[in-house]
Parts: sequence; C-alpha cells; structure tokens
Amino acid sequence: MTVPENLSSLKRMVADAPTRPPLGDVAHLGHAQLFTPCPQDTVAFFTDFLGLSVVERDGEHTYLRTWDDYEHHSLIVTGREKAGIGRTALRCSSPEALERRKAAVEATGASGRWVRDEPGVGPLWVTADPDGHEIALYYETDWYEAPSAPALKNQPEAKPGRGVGVRRLDHINYLAADVEESSGFLIDALGARPTEQIRLDSGRIAGRWQTFTQKSYDLVHTEDWTGSSGRLHHLAFATDSREDVLRAADLAVDTGVFIETGPHKHAIQQTFFLYVYEPGGNRVELCNPLTRLVLAPDWPLVTWTEAERKKGQAWGLQTIESFHTHGTPTVD
Amino acid sequence: MTVPENLSSLKRMVADAPTRPPLGDVAHLGHAQLFTPCPQDTVAFFTDFLGLSVVERDGEHTYLRTWDDYEHHSLIVTGREKAGIGRTALRCSSPEALERRKAAVEATGASGRWVRDEPGVGPLWVTADPDGHEIALYYETDWYEAPSAPALKNQPEAKPGRGVGVRRLDHINYLAADVEESSGFLIDALGARPTEQIRLDSGRIAGRWQTFTQKSYDLVHTEDWTGSSGRLHHLAFATDSREDVLRAADLAVDTGVFIETGPHKHAIQQTFFLYVYEPGGNRVELCNPLTRLVLAPDWPLVTWTEAERKKGQAWGLQTIESFHTHGTPTVD
Amino acid sequence: MTVPENLSSLKRMVADAPTRPPLGDVAHLGHAQLFTPCPQDTVAFFTDFLGLSVVERDGEHTYLRTWDDYEHHSLIVTGREKAGIGRTALRCSSPEALERRKAAVEATGASGRWVRDEPGVGPLWVTADPDGHEIALYYETDWYEAPSAPALKNQPEAKPGRGVGVRRLDHINYLAADVEESSGFLIDALGARPTEQIRLDSGRIAGRWQTFTQKSYDLVHTEDWTGSSGRLHHLAFATDSREDVLRAADLAVDTGVFIETGPHKHAIQQTFFLYVYEPGGNRVELCNPLTRLVLAPDWPLVTWTEAERKKGQAWGLQTIESFHTHGTPTVD
Amino acid sequence: MTVPENLSSLKRMVADAPTRPPLGDVAHLGHAQLFTPCPQDTVAFFTDFLGLSVVERDGEHTYLRTWDDYEHHSLIVTGREKAGIGRTALRCSSPEALERRKAAVEATGASGRWVRDEPGVGPLWVTADPDGHEIALYYETDWYEAPSAPALKNQPEAKPGRGVGVRRLDHINYLAADVEESSGFLIDALGARPTEQIRLDSGRIAGRWQTFTQKSYDLVHTEDWTGSSGRLHHLAFATDSREDVLRAADLAVDTGVFIETGPHKHAIQQTFFLYVYEPGGNRVELCNPLTRLVLAPDWPLVTWTEAERKKGQAWGLQTIESFHTHGTPTVD
Repeated sequence: MTVPENLSSLKRMVADAPTRPPLGDVAHLGHAQLFTPCPQDTVAFFTDFLGLSVVERDGEHTYLRTWDDYEHHSLIVTGREKAGIGRTALRCSSPEALERRKAAVEATGASGRWVRDEPGVGPLWVTADPDGHEIALYYETDWYEAPSAPALKNQPEAKPGRGVGVRRLDHINYLAADVEESSGFLIDALGARPTEQIRLDSGRIAGRWQTFTQKSYDLVHTEDWTGSSGRLHHLAFATDSREDVLRAADLAVDTGVFIETGPHKHAIQQTFFLYVYEPGGNRVELCNPLTRLVLAPDWPLVTWTEAERKKGQAWGLQTIESFHTHGTPTVD
Repeated sequence: MTVPENLSSLKRMVADAPTRPPLGDVAHLGHAQLFTPCPQDTVAFFTDFLGLSVVERDGEHTYLRTWDDYEHHSLIVTGREKAGIGRTALRCSSPEALERRKAAVEATGASGRWVRDEPGVGPLWVTADPDGHEIALYYETDWYEAPSAPALKNQPEAKPGRGVGVRRLDHINYLAADVEESSGFLIDALGARPTEQIRLDSGRIAGRWQTFTQKSYDLVHTEDWTGSSGRLHHLAFATDSREDVLRAADLAVDTGVFIETGPHKHAIQQTFFLYVYEPGGNRVELCNPLTRLVLAPDWPLVTWTEAERKKGQAWGLQTIESFHTHGTPTVD
Repeated sequence: MTVPENLSSLKRMVADAPTRPPLGDVAHLGHAQLFTPCPQDTVAFFTDFLGLSVVERDGEHTYLRTWDDYEHHSLIVTGREKAGIGRTALRCSSPEALERRKAAVEATGASGRWVRDEPGVGPLWVTADPDGHEIALYYETDWYEAPSAPALKNQPEAKPGRGVGVRRLDHINYLAADVEESSGFLIDALGARPTEQIRLDSGRIAGRWQTFTQKSYDLVHTEDWTGSSGRLHHLAFATDSREDVLRAADLAVDTGVFIETGPHKHAIQQTFFLYVYEPGGNRVELCNPLTRLVLAPDWPLVTWTEAERKKGQAWGLQTIESFHTHGTPTVD
Repeated sequence: MTVPENLSSLKRMVADAPTRPPLGDVAHLGHAQLFTPCPQDTVAFFTDFLGLSVVERDGEHTYLRTWDDYEHHSLIVTGREKAGIGRTALRCSSPEALERRKAAVEATGASGRWVRDEPGVGPLWVTADPDGHEIALYYETDWYEAPSAPALKNQPEAKPGRGVGVRRLDHINYLAADVEESSGFLIDALGARPTEQIRLDSGRIAGRWQTFTQKSYDLVHTEDWTGSSGRLHHLAFATDSREDVLRAADLAVDTGVFIETGPHKHAIQQTFFLYVYEPGGNRVELCNPLTRLVLAPDWPLVTWTEAERKKGQAWGLQTIESFHTHGTPTVD
C-alpha cells in the first residue's frame, strides 16, 4: 500500500492500532522505593533540593512526600549497599480492581505475596515484572493530614518555599534486558497502555512508554545493555512549570547537585527535562509536560525508528553518552 | 463529633465520600458549538487571537481546531441572531460505551436522536441536559491530517506562531436554573464525577464541577439567576503555560479584545485564568492548570461554603460583578 | 497645531521634551532602611518569604542582602515604635560625583552631614528630600564576600533555594505632600531623570517616577493625602521572572503573608507586580519588568491623565482602595 | 600572595580593577545591517519567526524593527553575494557626545566619513573597528510613529501576536583576528566598558564583552581562527522571558529554522540563549538575561580561564563545535 505523503503519522498509526482497553484497574503510580548507600545525603537531596518533606522514619526507611500527594508518602529512601530501585507501588481503582489484576498477574504464571510492611497504606500484593523490578498493588491508603492546613482546601498540603517544590512522583524508567517482555507484562497483566516506543532497525523494541492514566506515561522500560536485571534508569518528579525546571538547574549547580543533561525537551513524549544524580548515584529527572495529556481512547502506539532517534532530542540536543550507560545499581 | 483541628479537609471529605465509578464511558470533551451574531468577527477572534485554525466552512458553520486536537475540529462557530452555546459533543470510549450511555440517558426519561450533520465525525446521538444544553455523544472520528507534518510525530499539528496558540478546548461552564438537577444528569446518565461544588448557606448547590477524565473538570454548571435556560457562562481553552496567559493579556489589550477579569488564580480548581469576551459576546476563558490532575480514584467532592467564597479568588481578587451577571444569550 | 491621529504619543512627547542630562553622578539605589515595631517578624518575612539573608546584626539593626547585591547589604531592618522608611542610600559613581551632588544639594539650601554608622560602606553624606525622607550619598563600599563561592564567578552569591529569591532592591515609592517639590529635588540636586508622571486635571502632579539608571525608575513620589511627611508607600524587590511573582503569591497565601493586590501589570512603567504587607505594616512590592529598559538618552517624560488612570491597570484591574490610603507610618 | 579561600572572585577583581569611566557618550546599540544572499527569505525569517515588522523597503535594503524600538529601524537586511554583518549603528547621548567620540576615534589614527544614507536617522559618522567591522555614530533619530497606537502610551508599538515577538536588538558578537586590539578600540575610542573576557593559558584574550549601558554587554569580540577580517559570529535579539525562548525553539523546529544549540544558559554573562541560523547563513541568538544588570560603577572585568571554559555552559552543556567554526561570511 502506498501511503500518501499528506497523511499525518498519528492518523496512520490509529488506522493500524489494535483496540485498547479503557482506563483502568491500576489508578496511578503511588510511590517508589529507592536504595542508596548514603541515605542521609539522599534524603537531604530530596528535602533540600527537590523540596519533599519527611513524614516518617522507621529504621533503615525514610518516608517522604511531595506536597501535592494525597497519600502518606511518594517515596521511600532505604539504606543499602548499592543504589537502585526497590518497590514500585501502584494504587488500584478499587479492591475489586486489585483482585482482578492479581488474578491477571497469576494467570501469566507470576507469583506474588501479601505484605503489610509500610505505614500509611493497607495490604500490598507484591510481585515483579519479568526483569525483576518489584511491583506492589494496593488500594487502601491513608489520605494525608497536613499538620497545618494549606490556604486552599482542594490541596493536601502547602507547596513549600524550599527547593524546587516538585508536585508529584511522575514516572519510573526501568532498565530491562527484554523490553518487550517486561512491557508486555505491564500491558497484559496490569492493563497499562503503551503510548510510544523505539523500534531498532533489527526489529527489537529498545524502549517502551506505558501509562495507566491520561498522563502520557507512568512506567517506562528501556533496554539494559548489561547482563544484569532489575536496574533503574531514572525516577522522575513533575514540576509545575518549565520555569521551575530552569530554577532547579541554577539551584543544582550552586548546591553541588550533578547535572547529567538538560534542560531540554524530549522528542519522545515531549517532556521538558533535567537529569541529575542524587548522592547515592540514582538518576532523577525533573520533568514538565506542560498541559499535554493523552485523552483519546484510541491513541495509537507511536513508534520511533533508529533514524528518527539519531536526530536527537526535540530541539536537536544529542543524547549524552552516559544516558545510555549509567544505571543503578552500577555494573562492574 | 468533634473534628480535630489537624485533620485536613481532604481526608475528612474522603471519609464521607460515596464510592465513585471509575473512568469512564465518556472519554473526553470533544468539541463545542458557539452561536454568534457576528460570525466573521468571532472566527477572526479565534484564529487571530487564540490561534485556532479554520479547517472547513459549510454555510453558516465554520469548523476550527486547536493545534493539539487529534480530531477534525474543536469548535464550531455558527451565525445566529443571539450569542450562546449550541452543541457540546462528548467522545465516548468505544461504540459500546456510547450505547451504554445512550441507554442510561433514556433510562432517565430523556430522549435523543441520531444525526450525521458534522464533517469529520461519525453519527452523533443528540440529547440535552435538564436545563436544555444540547449534548451529543459520538465515537467515530477522523484523526486529523495536517497539511504539513509537525516536527514531532507524536503531535497532530504544529503549534502556530500566531496568537496565543491554545492547546485544547478545556471545559465548558453552563448556566443552569437548577444546578443539582443538571449536574445529576451528567453524573447519573453520563458517568461524570463531581470534583468540587459551591453550597450556599441555604443548602442550595450554586455550582458544580464535573469531570470525565483526570483533568479536574470538563463540564461545569453554575446557577443562572434569570428565568431562562440553556445559557452559557463560558467556554475555556487551555494554554501551555501561565506565561502564555500573561502574553495573551497583552495581546488582548493591544488588539481590542475585552478583558473581563484576570489574570489570577481560581480558588476552586486552582486554575490560572483570564476571561475575555469574543466579539459575539460569549465569555471565553484562557486557562492553565499547571500540572494539576485528579488521579485518586476516590477523590472527594470538595465543597466550598458561602463564607469561603467571600474570601475571593486564590490570591484575594474579589470576583467581578459581571462574572455573576453576564451570560449568553443575554436576557433582557 | 493639529496633531494627526497617527502620531504616537512617544514621538509627540519627545518633540516637547527638554534636554536631559546623561547618566549620572548617582550610580544606583544602594540600600534602604525600614522601621518596624516587630523586627523579628519583619526579618523573618525578608529571609523566609523573600529569600534575603542576614549578613550582620548590630543592636536594633539587622542588615540583610539579596543574592545579586554586590554590596554588603540591601536592606536595614530597624526596630521602632512605628513602621516606616528610614534611610535611602544612593551609591555615587565616584568620589568626585558624590562631591558634585553634595554641592548641588547644598546649593538648593538643604543641609547634610557626614556619618560613618553602617558596616560595609564608607562615609555617607546624609540629607533629606523636601518631604523629609532621609537620603544618604556614598561611594566607598565593601564588595561582598560570600562564605561559599557561587557556581558562576560573575555573581556575588548563589541564589537561595529558600523563599522567592528576589534578585535586588529595585525601587522605593515615597509618599510626599508636594510631589513636584520632592521630585524636583531629585532631578535638580541629584540628577535623577523623570520618566513618567500622573497629572491631575487640576494640573497638580500626583505621582512621578524618577531614575538614575537605565531601569525605568528607581525612586517614586506619590501624593500623600494626609498632612504628614516622610512616609512610605512601598519598597520593591525585583524577581527574575513573572513566574517567580506567581510562585510568591502561592507562598504568601500559604504562609500568612497578606496580599493587598496583584499579581497584575501596571500601566505606568509596565511592571508586573504583587503587593504584600510585611508584618510591621510596611507595603512591599515584588516586581518584574521583563527586559524593559530606558536606553534612549532623550526618553520623554510620559504623562498620564486622570482619565487614563481611571482605566485601571494594564489589563484592566481597578486600583484597590487601600493602595490610595495605606502608608507607613500610619496616620491616625 | 595567598588569597584566602573565602574571598569571592568579584571582590578580588574589584580590588585589582582600574577606574572605569562613567556612562557614556555612546547611549546604546541602535541598529545593525545584515548581508544575505537570499534577502527575501531572510526578511521572512525576521518577520514570521522573530516577529519584527518591515517599516520600509528601498532597493536592496529592507528596514525592520522590533516592537519596543523607539527608533525607525533595528535592522537593515541587504542583499549581497555573501552573508555577513554590515554597519553597526550606535546612538550617541547628544550631538556633543558624538563629536567627542569622533575626535577620540580620529585620535587613534582611524578615519571616518559623514553619510546620510538611511531613512529615519540623521547624519551618521562611519568608521570601523581595527578588524574592519563598520561602525557608525549618530544622534539624530526619528522617534517611531506606530500606524495604530498601542494600548499603553509608554511603549512605541504593540507587541505583535506573530512569531516570537522579540523586544529589541540586544547585542552583536563580532569575530576578530585580534580581540584585544578591536576591543581596545571600543574601550578607548568609544568609551565602552569591558565586563567579561576569556584569557587563554597563553595569555591571549580570546573573547571580550563590552557594554555602553547597564546591560551587561552590547558588543562582543571573539577570536576568528581564520585569516579573514570583519566577520560576524552572531546578532542577538532579547526576548521578554525565558518562556519566549522555549516557545521559539518549538516554533523553529516546526517552521524549518535551523537550531544550532540551546536553549541553555551561558556561564559568561549568564544569558539564557537559543542559537539559530537565518536562511542567509548568519547566526542569530535569541537571548534573555532575566533582570540581570550591571549597576555597579566599578564593576570589575571578570576573566574566565581555559580551564573554566572547559566546564561548558552554566548548566554543563558542552559548547557545540560549530560555535567555534561557523562565522559569516563563510571562509573557504
């Protein structure tokens, strides 16, 4: 078939797209756990630089939250020998939705277990994606009580006057040995919708962006070039504006936070970004999508080719080498 | 029961909230129709000031689109003796979802009819809310083909270098004689979720904000103080940033666009806003929510009291008198 | 003479303008002194909300600085029974320039005295404008040594991650019984250039904006409606961006800082503004001029009429009543 | 001598600085002339992308202006076989100032001539810097009359709703075989103040930034690695905000404007930048300094070393290779 030149990519993609399920038994990304060899410095990074606050400490775990999180915590910082990603917790839409997803996971042959090991949330059903990233499903959650009420009652807490003041945990980008396999787990077992992907000339999928919401992505898998599994590419927090990201860049250089690349705009998903490393070595993104959302129920899976990726980011920035090589835990 | 002072409003509200249905048979607000006594000037307002483009003209109808709309049109401008709102078209999540909502509407006793009277979309099932605002449900839609491809393939069309360059039709605010009745129709028959409301000391609901998405609102009913029905308070378009709204304010005063109030930040829904009148007299809002979303599946209905409303907008601006009195069509 | 309609105001004004002297024996506004009945709260306002830092405390005086000030301090907070403005210190371009201005002041019949009563600056020659606002001229100054070097060497200090992070003390707006007389003193004795003014229908000048720099104004006199003298309308600090002002508005409402009016854009001088009261009662402006400068050596004095002022601010906001009545010290 | 660690760079620099003359016989950069082999495309770039407007055409010359320019034109686009920079016109503070600078230029042995070859300005005295860049001094100028008055009378013209809408011609960066010689001419003969420079380890000055105003730079010389003279590195236009620069980047990629590098923040002068090429091949910068100004009369000359330059731009971006090699006219 000859495709006329004036057909937009999106229109063609939709024509070819399989039917997608509606939103969704998984309501949204709830919180994540980060491992770090220097928990004190890592916590200081998140409080002083990003502007999160500590809600609770319990042994090796520090529970932190962004100001617009309605739940108890957005992030758990846990001391470990090596940096990396621990648990990713996904809040389900209802107890029934959780049961449906548990059954769907088990139907894939994967196993899980119930735990009650976090403050502020109810029982979590813990499993893992095929690459070994721990994923927990939960529904019960304690709505956050701010010690002092914010000025506006439709907000859980006041935005702090300290640091960047990121609004929410936005997404997690895992490294995976087999992107398609791990992505397939999210899609089939958890009901995620893939919105964008990179397909190499060899046909292999080198990255895929999945969403549970009308944000254009929540969880991402990109290819790990090492033999290891369960590693993290980055964890991302959303800012209110691109100006917040620019302000963050100044704050980073003046407080010794390492900037890897940015600020710039991604071609994929169009996110305005800044990548930094927290003291433990994990890559953290500050991201801003402007007001972009994926509202179409039949939004197609957008595929980027190798040739398209070689054009660099949206405004032409070439992707920095370490972006392809650095992950946590680091591999010798 | 005594409520301890340190309980946040949101937590309390959640505790009292009924269970909400998940998202949603109605996928999102598709497009709207505006009546105007001076269609040529009104179209010029939307193209030159807001930066929409004309996709098609057909007799008295002009079809316009924002740059990030994946569909054929976001707005229909139709010449009429008096200004006002015509059809509101809601895209459903699937043909089955449309049938479910049609059945649910008919179950309320309301009637509807199938029409095929718009280019770029399939059959629409047309009904009305209890106050008489025409509401159409549809699923089939032509994904837009831009005459020239934008730089990024995950975008339907390039953002124009002309005018404000609003991203999308964001929401519609209807006036209604009985807010609760019309709101109830959206909730019960169409599956909308109410996120915020104003309750007068008399107990009457004077305004209610409903959403079909994870945007915090899509359709709003506020009380009409006149005896008429089916009127419009305003139509809103989302900008990429607050800076776009500020730039729009300069552009407005220099091109003779009447600014009613703003820029400022709403307390309700926290939207950064600017209200202008298009030449036909309809009120149009430019709005920016930053990156605020309602992701919680159990987000409570936030209720504002008369006393709270008297504090004015988020940063203290008192609501301008005309905001309570001007609607279209105007009432003698 | 009939002025054709298409003659711009600026062109006409220039044609009528007297020749202006070049810049300037007074280099720029150096620092200001604020009186407050609650110095501890006032200092907390400047450090926590505006993001200044304390450099030194000496008895009743606290010396504070903005991050981009190259001098020792930008502001002195001094405990007093009543709020108000103390000293305004103007840095001269050279010792000779200072002597020339001293002579020019004395030539008007005004007197002055040399003092050495501030840390970080050399001798100050202290006089007053005809309305009694203390004005000090100085040249010698200690360039600031930050305890830790900022990332960029062309900057005196890192921008803080705390509060608004205002860049500099921008301007001072005095109240004066006779605007023209006090303004004349600045122009004739200190070499200020008037850039904008308000002329009432009666012919009286109700406000005048003067500059020593290429900023469009540094010192302002507006009419005091009471019989008192030496009062303050407001002190202003410049932010990096309008987004900083919007962020400040959120921070204000959440930390109990009283917002009087704004954010909005002034018609006069086009400044984007937010007015708040510090705990002592003095009005403080956060202002952003974008990149507007007055570079023309023959920039005319722009005169606004009563009719023009009635149109409100740039985007139509009506000036709030207290803006015309509140000054410090308050008058019973 | 051992420098204590806590001495800031600026403080040390001031201590070592020679006395600088006050501002200044040259009031500001007036306008520039650009040569291009494709004038029609170049003019379209400036009008459609940057948002300048054409005020007059005269044979091979097109006169354009930015909206906040009070003069007749900010830019002359002239058809030539090769791209490059033509005349740079500097407005003097008075007729006397012009005569003083003419005498100072002649005292260096350089010659000049009076011409009256531009609309909208009076006689220009034309000379050149030692590297052969044509520089013209003038005082008489026609204040611009906008065909329709802007909403605010303290502004020459309305900001357009088309393209980026840059505020003013901000600065020019020349390439020069001998930076110190050409810079010396600006300083000694024209009264410019150097604010920043790059000194190579060899001692050679590889770049110097000079100002006539309280902007931190107006004219720049950087080293030309070829044997040619009189070439252009770039011409820069100031935007109102960083958001305008980000919006420009999107507009560029969607309209085929080549982006060389950016957006990012310069370490030198701290300017937020985006570099593009106009269709004729000349490099054009969109720049935003936030509200940074050089108000200190004794602001030191800040020197950057080779080692410091190797750290890249303010947030770490490595300078792109073509930034060191591309100039106009191109050299075979």
